[in-house]
Amino acid sequence: MQKITILIHCQDQKAIIASVTKYIASIEGNIIYLDQHVDADENVFFMRLECNFSTQNWTMDTIKRDFQTHLATPFKMSWEIYTQEYKPKMALFVSKYDHCLYDILGRYSAGELQLEIPLIISNHEDLRAVAERFSIPFFYIPFSKEIKKEGERKQMDLLKEYKVDFIVLARYMQIITPSLIALYKNKIINIHHSFLPAFPGAKPYHSAFKRGVKIIGATSHYVTEELDEGPIIEQDISRVSHSHSIEDFIIKGRDLERMVLARAIKLHAERKTMVYNNKTVVFS
Amino acid sequence: MQKITILIHCQDQKAIIASVTKYIASIEGNIIYLDQHVDADENVFFMRLECNFSTQNWTMDTIKRDFQTHLATPFKMSWEIYTQEYKPKMALFVSKYDHCLYDILGRYSAGELQLEIPLIISNHEDLRAVAERFSIPFFYIPFSKEIKKEGERKQMDLLKEYKVDFIVLARYMQIITPSLIALYKNKIINIHHSFLPAFPGAKPYHSAFKRGVKIIGATSHYVTEELDEGPIIEQDISRVSHSHSIEDFIIKGRDLERMVLARAIKLHAERKTMVYNNKTVVFS
Amino acid sequence: MQKITILIHCQDQKAIIASVTKYIASIEGNIIYLDQHVDADENVFFMRLECNFSTQNWTMDTIKRDFQTHLATPFKMSWEIYTQEYKPKMALFVSKYDHCLYDILGRYSAGELQLEIPLIISNHEDLRAVAERFSIPFFYIPFSKEIKKEGERKQMDLLKEYKVDFIVLARYMQIITPSLIALYKNKIINIHHSFLPAFPGAKPYHSAFKRGVKIIGATSHYVTEELDEGPIIEQDISRVSHSHSIEDFIIKGRDLERMVLARAIKLHAERKTMVYNNKTVVFS
Amino acid sequence: MQKITILIHCQDQKAIIASVTKYIASIEGNIIYLDQHVDADENVFFMRLECNFSTQNWTMDTIKRDFQTHLATPFKMSWEIYTQEYKPKMALFVSKYDHCLYDILGRYSAGELQLEIPLIISNHEDLRAVAERFSIPFFYIPFSKEIKKEGERKQMDLLKEYKVDFIVLARYMQIITPSLIALYKNKIINIHHSFLPAFPGAKPYHSAFKRGVKIIGATSHYVTEELDEGPIIEQDISRVSHSHSIEDFIIKGRDLERMVLARAIKLHAERKTMVYNNKTVVFS
Repeated sequence: MQKITILIHCQDQKAIIASVTKYIASIEGNIIYLDQHVDADENVFFMRLECNFSTQNWTMDTIKRDFQTHLATPFKMSWEIYTQEYKPKMALFVSKYDHCLYDILGRYSAGELQLEIPLIISNHEDLRAVAERFSIPFFYIPFSKEIKKEGERKQMDLLKEYKVDFIVLARYMQIITPSLIALYKNKIINIHHSFLPAFPGAKPYHSAFKRGVKIIGATSHYVTEELDEGPIIEQDISRVSHSHSIEDFIIKGRDLERMVLARAIKLHAERKTMVYNNKTVVFS
Repeated sequence: MQKITILIHCQDQKAIIASVTKYIASIEGNIIYLDQHVDADENVFFMRLECNFSTQNWTMDTIKRDFQTHLATPFKMSWEIYTQEYKPKMALFVSKYDHCLYDILGRYSAGELQLEIPLIISNHEDLRAVAERFSIPFFYIPFSKEIKKEGERKQMDLLKEYKVDFIVLARYMQIITPSLIALYKNKIINIHHSFLPAFPGAKPYHSAFKRGVKIIGATSHYVTEELDEGPIIEQDISRVSHSHSIEDFIIKGRDLERMVLARAIKLHAERKTMVYNNKTVVFS
Repeated sequence: MQKITILIHCQDQKAIIASVTKYIASIEGNIIYLDQHVDADENVFFMRLECNFSTQNWTMDTIKRDFQTHLATPFKMSWEIYTQEYKPKMALFVSKYDHCLYDILGRYSAGELQLEIPLIISNHEDLRAVAERFSIPFFYIPFSKEIKKEGERKQMDLLKEYKVDFIVLARYMQIITPSLIALYKNKIINIHHSFLPAFPGAKPYHSAFKRGVKIIGATSHYVTEELDEGPIIEQDISRVSHSHSIEDFIIKGRDLERMVLARAIKLHAERKTMVYNNKTVVFS
Repeated sequence: MQKITILIHCQDQKAIIASVTKYIASIEGNIIYLDQHVDADENVFFMRLECNFSTQNWTMDTIKRDFQTHLATPFKMSWEIYTQEYKPKMALFVSKYDHCLYDILGRYSAGELQLEIPLIISNHEDLRAVAERFSIPFFYIPFSKEIKKEGERKQMDLLKEYKVDFIVLARYMQIITPSLIALYKNKIINIHHSFLPAFPGAKPYHSAFKRGVKIIGATSHYVTEELDEGPIIEQDISRVSHSHSIEDFIIKGRDLERMVLARAIKLHAERKTMVYNNKTVVFS
């Protein structure tokens, strides 16, 4: 038995579900999960489907070809099929903060994440020891405005060499270049330490403290060229009060950052997110 | 155009979704919403589907007959179809507490609930004034162990007379008789002021206070013969601390009771709940 | 026995708590509650204290005079003393939305609020029936840019006539004039239907939907001349997903607005809020 | 300057706060934090106070002696004073689950915890590699009913040797002996993977799944001889639905366990908890 996940989006039309599920039935597939969504404003249809089928009678190649011919072409679908065995390769970008890094590596070591972490890239040497503690290759790539081109080239070479599928910025404190964003479109996940769109940019905890909010938050989103404006994957919040200092905000915020980023990584790795119109559809 | 909601459950089998969606396509129906669930342990399939179709070409009667013949019979389905126009009739049972009653009547008057409240039944006279304030018929039916038979008969007569579809116990402090439970199976909603299964029975806030919990809760569930053991529809919680007295628990709890009961009523009235094996499937 | 609440703020200095509590001991008062806060950045001390004392030996006048002489003057305190008997008078300002109004009047009728509602003021006639249902005087005062002066004068006359202590804008859709804000400084409570500072101004649910946030919120704050920029009293949030439409946001938001405004009213009426530097200290 | 934390409890009496704060003023101490609580049912007073004072004029020994003579003796107080420099020593007890262990060691390495972890004790060898990864001594002490006495002795020897102040059971799957509980009264913290008092004992996620709850939880508590009945320190919850399997409950629960245990450890290490009458006062 092979388990596959199919993601589809296309213009909304009649009989899409009927046609797709009929096709699954034709390969004697067993639907384990099906969720769909129609964006009524944009008239776009989204579907996520998990099914099992016997590899004795059908190969992945056959299925992909048939799916393209009989469904994707007539319905003008964008679609992807993933097999359960393949674990996506995730690159971690870090700077000096270690709390998200420890959390991700702890989860990874505990076997909670269906992915591989082939390397960690940083613009500082500080966290090399953490990477070594978990036996993951660590690459120091200095990065600044002046050496942007060179830094980007080194990053891209490593990402290519390690066949990286997606990138997670675990409190990485440098701008990602437009070329890298284009190469990994909707495949770079950032964690921002505020409840976006409140407090974008630098020092959000300080701004939140100054404003006197009663709740702080964290937001994970796909990186686009507009800083902190990409499609939101997950958010969460924590209560604060007048009795909390900026330091308390930061400490509480670390827990939010950890949790929200971990959830976003899991959702992405399990193919539960789709992006459209700068928003996400999250089939969770 | 007519909008209908279809609820289905049956043994899990291949091609159910394909067959149902194919049928919807055959009446040129437009699926607005589809969600399904498979209880893997029990091997049961559940589906909720909303669709529009043109009443010029198909009548409800035709659809119901065809659905029975071509889908329900071969797949051995339990199924229900609801039209959007029909507003279910909800009877409110109350005793002396008025906070849930005010909340429900406020929402009802503000047009938030897709239902009708033809009557309020109480074992006390206390809340007659509230009912009158909202111009809803109020019936005082004394109830105690001694006059159980008579009380039940009067309740049943009124429920029949007003064609009541489902019952909400808005802090009604008397036992519901087995006959009434049988008559309104999975159609009587209670609100219990604890996080079930913690603190069933009487005085849950007192027990929670004594135990020193850091979170209190409320639970809405369908009424079964086992007290506080019926299928849970919705729960919510609120943080408490050592600084809160039992009175504080009760006051905070009122908000939980209001919110949790209001959500359960909305879910039930919008046909978003299904019951199986003393648990609910809630398609929200 | 008399129960009083004392609110104090002054520059932080040594021995404030010792001096105040020594004074309470000197009138044989029993401290029921004491909470204090030091704003380390601004070096300001805040305290809220509840105590009982016997009115046989001390009058409120004596206490106030002694407090002024022996504590407030030497420590340069701003201070207020409230007796528990006095119920503050709250004016409700509404427009056309009725959900917050129903919620507040329901709580008021159920005896949950330690305050009086002598009148409701509106710039529309729509909600007169609701006010009448709860037997509260309703005044229609048209308001627009053109008749601002006249509207404001009528509002002020009524507020004076009914000896109003504080004002609640229960989704009142007109600007409050600077003169009225000055007259009721930190005594006008608004509910804004977003998680401020995200989405200030008009149509926040639409903006939240467009941005694709995963959590929506509501914020109650004291009104200042800067729109949606006043000191925040309370906030709360609710999860949303891609499957929710703008209409769903609005419906979910109504519950947030109700709850957050109700909590802010309660906190204010129970003298649990203090304002400093456009932020609140909330002793809850 | 020396920063100290004072914890007090005694029978409620007049002038306690006045006397304590007067004493702090007498040593020219600066109160940074003061919170107090009166258990009205039991008539017990609790206080937590942080203050700075100059060690040039007063030694800790003087302060302790004076405090005993002038305050503790007359008011019959139980009291403790902690200096900020001393970091309490925490022993970790683990079995086979590694998620809480990774989380705690990650936080510890990231410098979030004001404590030392001198050793890890386990009844299995499985997690030795994790301990070594973080360079913390790991001791394998087999434990079962048959070798209870011997296991307990070995545990006690190590705890003594390493001068352990408190113990954290990070999913340790063996009973703690009454002697050890007596030795570390209110100093052994357990994490239970349910919302206590719901689902005590074994396999709470399975029970929660069977009952069809809509919210699962985790509870950290001090260990007493009654299993899962000790004073609750912290609880938190997570929403679940019919679509979640037992495996999903377990995965979601791991995050709850991590967070709730981490918070309890922090509260205990920072001397923010007091125990009375099988309940905690948590000054957070």
